[in-house]
Formats: sequence, C-alpha cells, structure tokens
Amino acid sequence: MKFYTYFRSSASYRVRIALNLKGLDYEAVPVHLLRNGGEQLTDAYRAVNPSALLPALEEDGVVLSQSLAIIEYLDETRPSQPLLPADPLGRARVRALAQTVACDTHPLSNLRVLKYLRGPLGLSEELKQQWISHWISEGMAMLEAHLARDAQTGRFCHGDTPTVADCCLVPQVFNAQRFGVDMTAYPTVMRIHANCAALPAFIQAHPAQQPDAE
Amino acid sequence: MKFYTYFRSSASYRVRIALNLKGLDYEAVPVHLLRNGGEQLTDAYRAVNPSALLPALEEDGVVLSQSLAIIEYLDETRPSQPLLPADPLGRARVRALAQTVACDTHPLSNLRVLKYLRGPLGLSEELKQQWISHWISEGMAMLEAHLARDAQTGRFCHGDTPTVADCCLVPQVFNAQRFGVDMTAYPTVMRIHANCAALPAFIQAHPAQQPDAE
Repeated sequence: MKFYTYFRSSASYRVRIALNLKGLDYEAVPVHLLRNGGEQLTDAYRAVNPSALLPALEEDGVVLSQSLAIIEYLDETRPSQPLLPADPLGRARVRALAQTVACDTHPLSNLRVLKYLRGPLGLSEELKQQWISHWISEGMAMLEAHLARDAQTGRFCHGDTPTVADCCLVPQVFNAQRFGVDMTAYPTVMRIHANCAALPAFIQAHPAQQPDAE
Repeated sequence: MKFYTYFRSSASYRVRIALNLKGLDYEAVPVHLLRNGGEQLTDAYRAVNPSALLPALEEDGVVLSQSLAIIEYLDETRPSQPLLPADPLGRARVRALAQTVACDTHPLSNLRVLKYLRGPLGLSEELKQQWISHWISEGMAMLEAHLARDAQTGRFCHGDTPTVADCCLVPQVFNAQRFGVDMTAYPTVMRIHANCAALPAFIQAHPAQQPDAE
C-alpha cells in the first residue's frame, strides 16, 4: 500500500493510527502542504486525488480518498483488530462520534480554510485565532457531551478497545493543543486521549514520529 | 422511528432520501432552526442530541445522530434497497463521494457558520455570499472531478442505482442553487442530479414537500 500523507495533516494522522492498530505495513509518500505553494495542488497529486486533499491510499493501482472511507475499507478488508463494534447501534454511535470530528470540527480549521480567512477575507491573525478556538471548542464540547452522558464510553470512546472514533479524537486534540485551545472543559475527551497516547499504535502515528516531520 | 428534521436542513434531507429509498415510515418531528432563536439550541433538543444539530433519529428509545451514520445504520438494519455497493472498493468509493459533500463542502456553509461570519466576524452580506460560493464551488469541483474521471459513474454516482453518495449530492445541489451558485462547470453532477430528481424517493424528500416547509 502506498499512503500519501503529511505529518501534520489531521486526516492523515487518523489513517496512520488505523494502519498501526491493524499492524499494516505501508509505503509513506510525503506530500508537503506548504512547500512549493502546496504539493497537494500540483497536477501530479491531483492525478492521484482530484480533491487535492490528504490522505490517499493506493492499493493495486486503485486510489482511495477520505480518511473515514479509507479506515472503513481497511476494517472491511483486514477484519482483525476491528475498528468498529459488531452491533449496528454500536457502529452508528462510533461513526457519529468520528463524524462529530470529521464533519463538524476539523473542516472549519484546516489549512485551506485558514488560508482563505487570511487571504481573500483579509482577517487579522487575531481573528483567525478566534475562529479556530471557537470552532474547535464547539466541536470538543459536542464530543464531550456525547461521551460523558453515555455508559458505553469506556477507557476509549466506545468500550475498552480503540475504534475509528479514537482515530479521530486524538488528531483533533493534537490540533487543539497546537492552536493553544484550552481543553480543561473536556475531561472525558482528555481522559480518553491519555489512554490512547499510551499505546504504541498512537505513539508511532504522532506527527513528530513521521519521516517527513520538521 | 422518530425523525428530528428541518425542511431546509441539508443533512436531514439526505436521511429523508434514504428513508424514502428504503420505503420506511417515520414520524417527523420538526425542529425549526430559525424560530425562537433556534429550536435546536434548546435544552429539550440538546437532551435528544447534545450536538444541537439536525438530524437525529430515535428508535426504541435510542437516539442516533450524524446523517451518514444514520444512513449506514438504516442500511445495516434494513438491507433491502442497499445504499452501498457490496464490494469493499465500491463501498470505499461511495463513502468517499458522500464524505466529499459531508466533510469538505457542506460544513463550511451551514447555518451556524454563516451566523458566525455575519455576527462575531462582522462580515458584509457580500463577503458572506462570496464565502458560500467559494466553498460550494470548491466542493462541487472535487465531486465533478471524481465522478467525471471514473467509469464506475453511471446514471447515478456509482452505477445505475442510487447510493448514499446520491443522498448527499442532491441536497448539496439544492443548497448551491438556493445560494445562486453557478453550476454550469459541473455537468456530471448535474446529470446525476437530474436522474435523481425524477425518482419519487427524491421528490418526496425535497424541502418544499415537507410538512414544516414555509
């Protein structure tokens, strides 16, 4: 498998965790989001993924995109160490937690949006920071509320083994901390984060551990 | 099934299409996003869905949230009229197309974001419109590129029966047209939209056909 990744890309980080949890080997192809005006915007990368976003996974000449779709594909084709529960209600809960990050939190503070705020909208660095804090805090508050009220939350987002929800939670907390967002209001999120951070699969997927880290 | 919905909510519209494609009955509970300062923000609705977002689906006392998680749940528990292909690569493709709408397009122009642009950021109506057009156009260009280059695209996003990708495409085109976005650059998207728009399941899910439509 060829895996197109960038060390600090949150969506790439999710898939790296999933690959590690399943013990899968892959060839990392770094795509630098800032160098040369953004390597993801080149014709060469658009031929891989026309969305010009990371990550992408190539297997037997077929390219898959979208982190959650890739993780579900890995889970369907490599079923050991499942990343979704077996029961439909559990699966729905885990997917909803993952999507709370992937649909309601992360898209608002990713690189292309922050560039648009500073460029075409001409916002100050301070207003950009306010935007980031606002949307990450909103998303973390949602995640906290869902996790804190539900007895199905365990050592991890759903019970005592990591799922795709944890693959999303950890990179989002990394983002939040990188941008200096105060996380004290989200104790359940942070407890789960600490449990994940102790596992080799999560440690080895961390941005700082990547070959393309700066 | 109790289905919390708002006629113009894009994520609710996706699930309505799925419910109709599967021929499932449900009790619609309208939650008005604008009335009374936003009924989704009340304590009563937060007790249903702490994310304060639509839609939510309640079955046997369990509440599910996130449109894509709900649709996958319906597909797993009511397998006739499947909304995902049977093969893992096909499933990955369809999920990626759905997520191109649900993660990369829609979150940037939903109500809470538009309110933040006008309120805390103090942007003009014109800059807000520019923002909407920019992000919807970006998303539609991605979708068009993925669809146009792939022989698996048929009458619908994936072959000749509707999938969860079509459940996402149609509400996003509705949004685009409501905001006056020029769609001439996305002929494959619009061809599929026209094929969907002829089907009763899509017609009956349209915002204008809902009991809470204005």
